Amino acid sequence: MKTCRVAIAGFGGVGRTVGAMLLARRARYRQLYDMDVRLVAVCGSRAGLADAAGLEAQHFAMLQAGLTGPDMLKGANVLIEAGPTDLHTGGPGLAYLRGALGAGMDAVVISKGALVHSGPELRALARATGARIKISGATAAALPTIDLLDHSLRGGTVLGLEGILNATTNYLLNAMMLRHVGFEEALTEAQAGGFAESDPRKDTQGWDTACKLLILANFGLGADLTLDDMVVEGIEHLTQSRIERWRGEGLTPRLVGHLRREDDGWHARVGIKTYRGDDAFAHVPGKTKAIRIVTDVMGEILAMGGGPEPVATASAALKDLEHLLEHPRAV
Amino acid sequence: MKTCRVAIAGFGGVGRTVGAMLLARRARYRQLYDMDVRLVAVCGSRAGLADAAGLEAQHFAMLQAGLTGPDMLKGANVLIEAGPTDLHTGGPGLAYLRGALGAGMDAVVISKGALVHSGPELRALARATGARIKISGATAAALPTIDLLDHSLRGGTVLGLEGILNATTNYLLNAMMLRHVGFEEALTEAQAGGFAESDPRKDTQGWDTACKLLILANFGLGADLTLDDMVVEGIEHLTQSRIERWRGEGLTPRLVGHLRREDDGWHARVGIKTYRGDDAFAHVPGKTKAIRIVTDVMGEILAMGGGPEPVATASAALKDLEHLLEHPRAV
Repeated sequence: MKTCRVAIAGFGGVGRTVGAMLLARRARYRQLYDMDVRLVAVCGSRAGLADAAGLEAQHFAMLQAGLTGPDMLKGANVLIEAGPTDLHTGGPGLAYLRGALGAGMDAVVISKGALVHSGPELRALARATGARIKISGATAAALPTIDLLDHSLRGGTVLGLEGILNATTNYLLNAMMLRHVGFEEALTEAQAGGFAESDPRKDTQGWDTACKLLILANFGLGADLTLDDMVVEGIEHLTQSRIERWRGEGLTPRLVGHLRREDDGWHARVGIKTYRGDDAFAHVPGKTKAIRIVTDVMGEILAMGGGPEPVATASAALKDLEHLLEHPRAV
Repeated sequence: MKTCRVAIAGFGGVGRTVGAMLLARRARYRQLYDMDVRLVAVCGSRAGLADAAGLEAQHFAMLQAGLTGPDMLKGANVLIEAGPTDLHTGGPGLAYLRGALGAGMDAVVISKGALVHSGPELRALARATGARIKISGATAAALPTIDLLDHSLRGGTVLGLEGILNATTNYLLNAMMLRHVGFEEALTEAQAGGFAESDPRKDTQGWDTACKLLILANFGLGADLTLDDMVVEGIEHLTQSRIERWRGEGLTPRLVGHLRREDDGWHARVGIKTYRGDDAFAHVPGKTKAIRIVTDVMGEILAMGGGPEPVATASAALKDLEHLLEHPRAV
């Protein structure tokens, strides 16, 4: 049996869920992949823990101050990066990813900061060392997005795509449309329910959607976009009267990210688009996300989904891990 | 560079499209997989052609009588099976698949007969020789179905699924609902348009849906179902008045295949189910197919799609081929 040594960087709600689920699935990994998966390090922002023999879930309560940073990855084969997203610096994940990919470790990425900030650099680093980068957790998680581009539509040419990639704004728009509440009221409600952040601007201004779209384009379609290349509009300025007008016309607004292939490359933008009632995009419920991909030979493919967090995101990352385990790299 | 020798059995519209597209993509296969893909044999029901050095598209017009049957597969690494579906005998594909899998060749299966007739036998044969069976072409083709079960939802547990797996019946139901035409009229129209067969009973009685559901269950979820285990109802007996009643209630009928995991295993059935207007299943257009999968940790995933035939089905089979090329077996 081979051994796979996993390190988790970023040990908040998602990182801890990944850790617990990974440990609970060790028998599965042995059975399906003949692989002894060990959690050899976990690193929060200030504390962490490492053990080459493998940590257990009860150790998660005993993190030691200072045991954090890229040096903690030594001896690992796979990094799972689940730190906070910082678009301006790349966040703590950037140093971990540079360390891991530079040393030839495979990486399963959940946070978006490093991929948005330094995507082309990380892609080149991985290419140079043969490391693999998996990004399901950073691109709408349980909703298959990169899986469709990379796997299910393999061999076809993607002509364009559009995605409802942010659950919070979809919830807000549904509340405004279906329950006639205003933007502020819907937002307060979402914050009380725990599915909008206290500073919701990353979602409501469209930047979360823009980040996911950018990562999909750069890692799934070979684009080289930056946030500066994109027109990004949010939903904050939506008035009740505009909503009423759409309702009267039988239209449903969605905050969507668009990608379109043109002769000079990929064009991306984020903004509100309206859909008629006979379009599935008009019927994407509450906190669900969706994507529609237009191809040359396989027609149009639409996917819709999303599960309860943080379990769904952790599951998407562990799905990525299994794809790595299924085809281990020759050492 | 390694060489992959492909044989195509069943050389009608789909088989020929697969052949032509495969030849047109040879440069892609060399570039992405470092693989010299050669089409070494094509076999229709009465005639065929073989050349270990690789056939070209212009040879498709020069098939020779008698060059058909499993002996033609000698020297191939991958069989693409695209023959006619025969549920009672398994069709000509069964002998080809027994020959190929028994000899350790990987198989990309498009026709449903052999998989329905002898699924467990073929599964066991593949397991014994280490051969791989890919079934996208037999399970709704361009719509990702087995990809979701096998790849995108990996690690989660599927609790159940439902699918609009037959495009013809979905077209008929949409015509009856949206354009107020009767079943016979809609059928005549579909036959004239070339997307219902002259004997449409396999579609309208639900058997095509049942076959796809059975293959998904047996090859994607480890079930051991036979058609005898399933209650199968079609749409032939739908009256105009029943359609009117549903329309009045805001419901849309769909012919769906259901799978439900229970304590004693998988339960499957095919029949009409109605959906409210806020359900995406009510908005699956014309000849499009859809699937909804319920999981434990990744929530509900819905996919909808389908492209122009026979290109979409051929593309799905060649997608499967690329997944084989990506991870060639050690010889």
